[in-house]
Amino acid sequence: MIREDGRKNDQIRPIKIQRGFIGTAEGSVLIEAGNTRVICTASIEEKVPLFLKDTNQGWITAEYSMLPRSTVERTPRDITRGRAAGRSHEIQRLIGRALRSVVDLSAIGERTIWIDCDVIQADGGTRTTAINGSLIALAEALQFMRKQGLIDLLPLNRLVAAISIGIVEEEELLDLDFREDSSAEVDMNLVMTSSGEIVEIQGTAEKKPFSRETLERLMILGEKGIKEILQIQKEALIDIWER
Amino acid sequence: MIREDGRKNDQIRPIKIQRGFIGTAEGSVLIEAGNTRVICTASIEEKVPLFLKDTNQGWITAEYSMLPRSTVERTPRDITRGRAAGRSHEIQRLIGRALRSVVDLSAIGERTIWIDCDVIQADGGTRTTAINGSLIALAEALQFMRKQGLIDLLPLNRLVAAISIGIVEEEELLDLDFREDSSAEVDMNLVMTSSGEIVEIQGTAEKKPFSRETLERLMILGEKGIKEILQIQKEALIDIWER
Amino acid sequence: MIREDGRKNDQIRPIKIQRGFIGTAEGSVLIEAGNTRVICTASIEEKVPLFLKDTNQGWITAEYSMLPRSTVERTPRDITRGRAAGRSHEIQRLIGRALRSVVDLSAIGERTIWIDCDVIQADGGTRTTAINGSLIALAEALQFMRKQGLIDLLPLNRLVAAISIGIVEEEELLDLDFREDSSAEVDMNLVMTSSGEIVEIQGTAEKKPFSRETLERLMILGEKGIKEILQIQKEALIDIWER
Amino acid sequence: MIREDGRKNDQIRPIKIQRGFIGTAEGSVLIEAGNTRVICTASIEEKVPLFLKDTNQGWITAEYSMLPRSTVERTPRDITRGRAAGRSHEIQRLIGRALRSVVDLSAIGERTIWIDCDVIQADGGTRTTAINGSLIALAEALQFMRKQGLIDLLPLNRLVAAISIGIVEEEELLDLDFREDSSAEVDMNLVMTSSGEIVEIQGTAEKKPFSRETLERLMILGEKGIKEILQIQKEALIDIWER
Amino acid sequence: MIREDGRKNDQIRPIKIQRGFIGTAEGSVLIEAGNTRVICTASIEEKVPLFLKDTNQGWITAEYSMLPRSTVERTPRDITRGRAAGRSHEIQRLIGRALRSVVDLSAIGERTIWIDCDVIQADGGTRTTAINGSLIALAEALQFMRKQGLIDLLPLNRLVAAISIGIVEEEELLDLDFREDSSAEVDMNLVMTSSGEIVEIQGTAEKKPFSRETLERLMILGEKGIKEILQIQKEALIDIWER
Amino acid sequence: MIREDGRKNDQIRPIKIQRGFIGTAEGSVLIEAGNTRVICTASIEEKVPLFLKDTNQGWITAEYSMLPRSTVERTPRDITRGRAAGRSHEIQRLIGRALRSVVDLSAIGERTIWIDCDVIQADGGTRTTAINGSLIALAEALQFMRKQGLIDLLPLNRLVAAISIGIVEEEELLDLDFREDSSAEVDMNLVMTSSGEIVEIQGTAEKKPFSRETLERLMILGEKGIKEILQIQKEALIDIWER
Repeated sequence: MIREDGRKNDQIRPIKIQRGFIGTAEGSVLIEAGNTRVICTASIEEKVPLFLKDTNQGWITAEYSMLPRSTVERTPRDITRGRAAGRSHEIQRLIGRALRSVVDLSAIGERTIWIDCDVIQADGGTRTTAINGSLIALAEALQFMRKQGLIDLLPLNRLVAAISIGIVEEEELLDLDFREDSSAEVDMNLVMTSSGEIVEIQGTAEKKPFSRETLERLMILGEKGIKEILQIQKEALIDIWER
Repeated sequence: MIREDGRKNDQIRPIKIQRGFIGTAEGSVLIEAGNTRVICTASIEEKVPLFLKDTNQGWITAEYSMLPRSTVERTPRDITRGRAAGRSHEIQRLIGRALRSVVDLSAIGERTIWIDCDVIQADGGTRTTAINGSLIALAEALQFMRKQGLIDLLPLNRLVAAISIGIVEEEELLDLDFREDSSAEVDMNLVMTSSGEIVEIQGTAEKKPFSRETLERLMILGEKGIKEILQIQKEALIDIWER
Repeated sequence: MIREDGRKNDQIRPIKIQRGFIGTAEGSVLIEAGNTRVICTASIEEKVPLFLKDTNQGWITAEYSMLPRSTVERTPRDITRGRAAGRSHEIQRLIGRALRSVVDLSAIGERTIWIDCDVIQADGGTRTTAINGSLIALAEALQFMRKQGLIDLLPLNRLVAAISIGIVEEEELLDLDFREDSSAEVDMNLVMTSSGEIVEIQGTAEKKPFSRETLERLMILGEKGIKEILQIQKEALIDIWER
Repeated sequence: MIREDGRKNDQIRPIKIQRGFIGTAEGSVLIEAGNTRVICTASIEEKVPLFLKDTNQGWITAEYSMLPRSTVERTPRDITRGRAAGRSHEIQRLIGRALRSVVDLSAIGERTIWIDCDVIQADGGTRTTAINGSLIALAEALQFMRKQGLIDLLPLNRLVAAISIGIVEEEELLDLDFREDSSAEVDMNLVMTSSGEIVEIQGTAEKKPFSRETLERLMILGEKGIKEILQIQKEALIDIWER
Repeated sequence: MIREDGRKNDQIRPIKIQRGFIGTAEGSVLIEAGNTRVICTASIEEKVPLFLKDTNQGWITAEYSMLPRSTVERTPRDITRGRAAGRSHEIQRLIGRALRSVVDLSAIGERTIWIDCDVIQADGGTRTTAINGSLIALAEALQFMRKQGLIDLLPLNRLVAAISIGIVEEEELLDLDFREDSSAEVDMNLVMTSSGEIVEIQGTAEKKPFSRETLERLMILGEKGIKEILQIQKEALIDIWER
Repeated sequence: MIREDGRKNDQIRPIKIQRGFIGTAEGSVLIEAGNTRVICTASIEEKVPLFLKDTNQGWITAEYSMLPRSTVERTPRDITRGRAAGRSHEIQRLIGRALRSVVDLSAIGERTIWIDCDVIQADGGTRTTAINGSLIALAEALQFMRKQGLIDLLPLNRLVAAISIGIVEEEELLDLDFREDSSAEVDMNLVMTSSGEIVEIQGTAEKKPFSRETLERLMILGEKGIKEILQIQKEALIDIWER
């Protein structure tokens, strides 16, 4: 099988990162992975959810949505249908967990950092791209807090990146685009930190269950992609994060 | 009074137009007026609302929304609050009327063109900027239909543009930014076509009613702005619209 | 063209005002303009919206709705459809602005006056009739406050009235009924005070844009109607408002 | 105990019936029982609910709502709270059942008659007053159908009326007003036909259960009221219903 | 007529009570009446609704719902349809009133006891079965409070039970199952206490109004059923309630 | 660490399966894993979602909910909060995918099998228990279809089971209860078929990312649990599934 855009099976799509994309936000980015494009912003709110009240700890939460015409066919807005898609709920919980795993929440005080991921163009991998971009917006917001004197050190322990892996027509592919994703037999998302540890692994076989050996090979493929993305994030954050 | 960005009272903000901004849509644009930035897309749907069934006529309808962090303080999403803001309803009806006034709906067949205006950064004049950008996205979508052979001629009779005018601290200003708009005594929006006719006039005096003479002067100011925007639209559509 | 009810083009419909229509409310009226009939009530609440907290200022806000069978065909209730019509949002914001423009909000203390306009029979001009009736209900409520000793003087600076004007089959008409409104080429609403100033002007050309000269003529027609309505309001409020 | 309005314990409030109150509806009435006032309309729709499709039978359904300022304190609209009150659901089901019990549904064809009861002023007994008025609006709508030639005979077998009875401070009262209702130990609603039969009986003891003997006495009191209301309805429908 | 399950007309269905059915709740029961099965739980919350704040009095409130497949045809969940059925509202208000009538609310302190009735299998009489089971769950919760030392005595004055009675094919039946209920000409629910007094009586004639004599006979039938159920409750609560 | 219920780290909780628990459903079960108890039903609907129309293929979809008092603290109903929890959406999608992976959807015709999982008592592992129980209900429903002659063979290719694994206080545990789950550093769910293949793997590190080696060990632990559950399912389905 030759991939539509000529990529090798183990090759990720080109990633572009435009920092400070939204002038009104404490942190923001337009991130592009191939034709998938997501605006991520980070907003600082001076309060925490009820369950963290008086714990001296902060929180990071995420919202994820798609513009109606990010998809090839126009998708009605959530508000028109009266509710957010179940899929959106799943994704925003994933983004929140990924980011919280690399931040020292006790260091940001009783504040909530709201991450908003709005997909403006969708071609597969919107959730992984949202995570990869959110990290940038989050880092900017933390840097903003440091400059404001709200915190002394950047409470960002590691970087975190995400990638999809899948099996399409029996070939194991890295970073699936929409067409590949739609016909995948196995679909996997991997979130890992810059210390080489797993934050999240989600592997699903809608069409065909897969063996332990296959899982092993997909993990190796995924780790390769994660490392490349972490390198791109590192370069994009050169002024903020120095490890 | 000196305007924050140094503009003269009768000067519009610089407008930037990035056509084809969303690769998935039949028409799309990122339009910027100063710090106000809106993504507009146009989507063609092969059916019409019930009331136009079997009339051989098409329809244009618009939706308008703001990303949560387009504003200086993060605004919760419509879906979180359970309903679209009344203000959004008002604006999307306005956009629809403006565009329908310059298109020959009987020439596009039983199709609906959906306009989506998503404000990614808000600094006043989001509704007028949305109209100005929507026209570009609409023209692209009509051009797309022509290239597809769905229509022979471009059913765009005229161009249409919008601008705000207002009175702030007793000075009559063109194209108000957010700060100006927030303290305006009189706030007016004007939508006019390239044939010099009025499509919509909305003038509101929240703080202080105004005289007929004031209305007259504000109209003249508005017309000046409209003409400049129409010229910018014309240049942006040089390959599509030749009148 | 001869108007269905035999009126001249520049003639308003007969207006009937029944004050104190709802015994439970501080102010109330049944207002009729031809076959359009609206119940307006004014309710005093001893608190203000958040943004006015501790400002020593009051607020006036309006809600507008139509009984299901006010229309020729029964219209489902908002609650059945799950949301208020966009049109209702637009109208209630308009009513609120109109009334606030003639009241000294700093004189009523930290109170909210709720205006409820419920259309019981609809034949065009429901929003203008709602404004015209709301003023009466509002005046009654302010008078109630004076009698209660909550305020010394009536903080009503001027009266305010509203009228529609439009172009139907190329004729310029005052005070359109439903049939006329449905086929209007240009539709305009004008809200003016008893000092001859404009509070709101909304002119829309769905079918055909109009020239500056047409706007001028429609304004003159509108002002004629406004003056007649102001006179009727004045007589209805003879015991309350003496200017 | 002396009742606030001087009525004897077994006396109903004065009832006023203004027929044809809403010009747009097939049947309509403004009914007043003391200070309780309800607008009832009847609307004919040329279709039936799914479960009656192709059965050659019609349906009668009711909706009940209160204007915000029908109550002494303003009550927020259903649409503001996002749902109809549970109480409203209960009442509209009751109204529907009462009316269906006296109409031959097989004689009206596959049509739905929508009854809308909108309380404009509330002083207790709104549900019974709504039933009493609905019967009038319904009769008008059936008469309308007869005049249109849709039916030959009036498919109204009997009249139906409703009244409340209750125990307040150990006294058994007929037709409770709001103040009495609020402090009632036992609260009962009775719906009966002009043939002296029971359509609905609802007796509730929130504060204190009651004996079989008490039930018996309350029933007798209720029947007295029902008979008086039926007589008033009969007179109001003199031109339509002759039995 | 012979009843499907061979019961005599005046015979109730066998009742099974499984106490402590849900280990997490302060009170709980699985109650079965023939094929109707309901899980009832009682939960103690350390606060009261606003209207009871600082009155030193408690409250009992109920919620009622049906599992989607409790019915012969699967019924969509409330949340899918976006609102609770009107019928559910009616029933949960009924359950609350029934229970409150036998508890001394001033003895439980400022606490709310939440009753949840979830029908897992529905074959008619779900509301009466819910009441009968709720009493058991409530008694368990009150006993729990006594054991916790929150109250000294069991503030349960009497027991309360409910039963349905109806007329099907002109026969007067006790405790209708779903099939009987669906074709009933008269449908009645009776709630009575162990002191022989009426808490609630609801009688409805959808198909055919009924006479005072019929009401009398149905009451007698109902009382017979109530007594039998009270006896079953008494035995089930032998360790808690001794009167 | 000693587990609260005395289990070894690699020991699953005792599982009880009560087949045919809901008499109204084509397939149903009450499944208990320790103190976690779930009612699962399977309902056959004679239509498919739009995207499968005319494909000759069936569908399996799931809904998941918790009774308010399944939890130690009462949880408000979805309908009260106005929306299903994001968590529920995630879980019902998981259940659907798990079941679809072992059924030949082309063999069941254009039918939808609705799976309803209602948790009546929650003590951790509700989603895995829901999957384990759903398989039983599904098998019953498929058997029902076979008996009805709708299908010839049982289109169930394999069995499917689910289990949770996690790290608590640095110990690797199988089948976490609520207390363990609440304090887990790593939380994993594994869904596997009786042919030893993976359908779903979801591993999350909220508190502390984990290494590849840890993932490996948790997988081995999970597989042990899966095998034991598959054996229990096999015995429960002895009359239906014979492989």
